[in-house]
Amino acid sequence: MTAVSVLGTGIVGRTLAGKIASLGHQVVMGTRDPDASLAVTESSPRGLEPLSDWLGANEGVSLGTFADSAATGEIVFNAASGDGTLEALGSAGAANLSGKILIDAGNPLDFSDGMPPTLLVGNTDSLAEQIQREFPDAKVVKALNIVSAPVMIDPGAVAGGDHHMLIAGNDDSAKAEVTRILEEWFGWRHVLDVGDVTAARGLEAYVILWVRMMMSLGTVGFNVKVAQ
Amino acid sequence: MTAVSVLGTGIVGRTLAGKIASLGHQVVMGTRDPDASLAVTESSPRGLEPLSDWLGANEGVSLGTFADSAATGEIVFNAASGDGTLEALGSAGAANLSGKILIDAGNPLDFSDGMPPTLLVGNTDSLAEQIQREFPDAKVVKALNIVSAPVMIDPGAVAGGDHHMLIAGNDDSAKAEVTRILEEWFGWRHVLDVGDVTAARGLEAYVILWVRMMMSLGTVGFNVKVAQ
Repeated sequence: MTAVSVLGTGIVGRTLAGKIASLGHQVVMGTRDPDASLAVTESSPRGLEPLSDWLGANEGVSLGTFADSAATGEIVFNAASGDGTLEALGSAGAANLSGKILIDAGNPLDFSDGMPPTLLVGNTDSLAEQIQREFPDAKVVKALNIVSAPVMIDPGAVAGGDHHMLIAGNDDSAKAEVTRILEEWFGWRHVLDVGDVTAARGLEAYVILWVRMMMSLGTVGFNVKVAQ
Repeated sequence: MTAVSVLGTGIVGRTLAGKIASLGHQVVMGTRDPDASLAVTESSPRGLEPLSDWLGANEGVSLGTFADSAATGEIVFNAASGDGTLEALGSAGAANLSGKILIDAGNPLDFSDGMPPTLLVGNTDSLAEQIQREFPDAKVVKALNIVSAPVMIDPGAVAGGDHHMLIAGNDDSAKAEVTRILEEWFGWRHVLDVGDVTAARGLEAYVILWVRMMMSLGTVGFNVKVAQ
């Protein structure tokens, strides 16, 4: 059993936390203000049920502050919004992230002009690089950001799992461990390491294409297979 | 038989021109200064043979100025470098592009700091959009830019052709015609329209990921399949 921190309570955070808890791991989900989050009684504008209801149906998941969550987790997932990630990780605290694998599933998307979104950072930098610079003692591995939440934890539902998860990061042993997690926890059959953390520029920029494919295909239930 | 303009004499231009001429079409390749291009007697730094030698081995292809080429072609391929495209098209002349399908295979890549490259334009704009704005009477279709030159004209060499070409542009009938060309001339089995010309932002940004995958895989002989 592994103690896992999931930072963020949106659709990505819930999907990851629920799946990981269902495997028997100890999951603490982190949010800025747990009391405020629990006090919400209405669904979100995007249709997410109140967090208290969701937690009631996912008893293996507990809720705490970002710092509570990161302190508990042996492994940390960033599932915060792109524009909220650095603040969330700052609240989590550098000491609570030091030496740990930090799986960055985030995308620095700006929806302020609606769909399709633009990137908040890109080309010569990326969200993952910003995180790695800000928290040099964390082992940042970019992963999962190229697919929708349902596909993250159930790749077999798309083309029988015959497609690729792409990851990037500076630490080879951390990438090997993330690969094991992707395979054993979530069922990914194909994981391709595309380079050091600067390769996250490509993984994040790809999401701009992903959005267009999603709009064209009319589903979030897809991914790409690297064909050779 | 179709009269085809290929703007650019690099690896992409030669690959497209050679293939299209081999099908029996009339191909005029365009360059800034034909006499200067023909006077080169040494291979390029990247290993391309002198253009005069290449033309000698590809007799169905003739050489002219950008304007000669565009004036002749019923369909125009942009195979110029990303940073040379707008100048090349300006030399080709708006009147020679008016009403024609302009297949933009270019990528706005900046190699001035070596590998991996960065983008010269992106996020809220793209090369294809710049072209469409500059030449509003051309029917710009972004296509072929997501793969290497050999794969453009021989998709079957990668995974038996079981992967996707993604295209974008504002004119549906132009996209239908480009899809036919991709299928009938080059053998593409799967062509996915990802939207209007602004979707080229995604197609061009993807190339940043493509470069990282190329570096990881150690080959340019790959592409992605959209798996559902």
